[in-house]
Amino acid sequence: MEFSSKLLENAVNEMSQLPGIGKRTALRLVLHMLRQPATQTNALSQALMQMRTGIKFCKSCHNISDVDVCEICANPNRDESVICVVEDIRDVMAIENTSSFKGLYHVLGGKISPIDGIGPHDLNIVSLVEKVKLGGVKEIIFALSSTMEGDTTNFYIFKQIQDFDVATSTIARGISVGDELEYTDEITLGRSILNRVPFESSLKL
Amino acid sequence: MEFSSKLLENAVNEMSQLPGIGKRTALRLVLHMLRQPATQTNALSQALMQMRTGIKFCKSCHNISDVDVCEICANPNRDESVICVVEDIRDVMAIENTSSFKGLYHVLGGKISPIDGIGPHDLNIVSLVEKVKLGGVKEIIFALSSTMEGDTTNFYIFKQIQDFDVATSTIARGISVGDELEYTDEITLGRSILNRVPFESSLKL
Ligand SMILES: [Zn+2]
Ligand SMILES: [Zn+2]
Repeated sequence: MEFSSKLLENAVNEMSQLPGIGKRTALRLVLHMLRQPATQTNALSQALMQMRTGIKFCKSCHNISDVDVCEICANPNRDESVICVVEDIRDVMAIENTSSFKGLYHVLGGKISPIDGIGPHDLNIVSLVEKVKLGGVKEIIFALSSTMEGDTTNFYIFKQIQDFDVATSTIARGISVGDELEYTDEITLGRSILNRVPFESSLKL
Repeated sequence: MEFSSKLLENAVNEMSQLPGIGKRTALRLVLHMLRQPATQTNALSQALMQMRTGIKFCKSCHNISDVDVCEICANPNRDESVICVVEDIRDVMAIENTSSFKGLYHVLGGKISPIDGIGPHDLNIVSLVEKVKLGGVKEIIFALSSTMEGDTTNFYIFKQIQDFDVATSTIARGISVGDELEYTDEITLGRSILNRVPFESSLKL
């Protein structure tokens, strides 16, 4: 692509760094911005920068937050003895949306995936095991996607905590195997939380 | 969508203003930025703002430019007696890429489309007619997409300039009817410029 403007070229190149945005799409988006008032592009730029520099991760559950401890962890009405382990903050949003869960979360930040070079130490696993060791946690609910990587991650964590006095469960497989959690409808997802099964029994399936 | 952070929500909302980017996609893009170094988000924000505030449109052809008169218009080796009329700067990029055209361009900024509320006065048509009136232009090549809106726009301009001493042509219809110019391969596009036909004869097809 030959650009008639360095400013345009630079904007297109930066936009096309984003996943799933090729050069053509980036150019289309950037030309759209040029047709809109400048205030709109400024608002986008400001929002992205403020987010990137200002955002925090909850010290307890690693959820995205504007404060040190997120609203969910800081809420005295939530049951801190039940922890739902999820891959991603999108999963927290999806489960919160069902209003079926009143415990706390633990955001791993991914799944164990040797092929992508993601090992246990790249994820927030140590802090989860520490919580269990400290006591007070009665149940760990595994709510990762039911893929091979999800299963591997569940099993890795299970091995680390099985000697402690904590129950483990997985959300019910009402969700089709291989489906991403965040794309599941609210009712199915809500039910799969209520009908969760002990983790060990899920291993026999 | 319920967000655990206002900064995150704001960034997602701004991203999802872009055409074709829904809330889910915006969230996926923004979470990607959070996994990358902050320098990357800053570079994107800066590039967008600098583009939006710094970019200029060529005073002569309305192409995007970093200077008042674009590189093409300012190039003494280009033939200023032949003007290729295009819808969009992407079409300039596509034609330049074929290296088959040595004249100048005129970027209309769209097509006449009553259904989208775009009339002749929303486009850079007056300045094109002025160029013809001033003399020195021997040929106008219409290179709009061969859609109904493209044909309407060609015909509108043709009516305005037909009494002046200027030849009109359209690029050869090697390009399938209804196809967008910018997605055409270089060879087809290059040939359709070389084999352009007088505009009046194209009306009889
Ligand atoms: Zn938290
Ligand atoms: Zn120009």
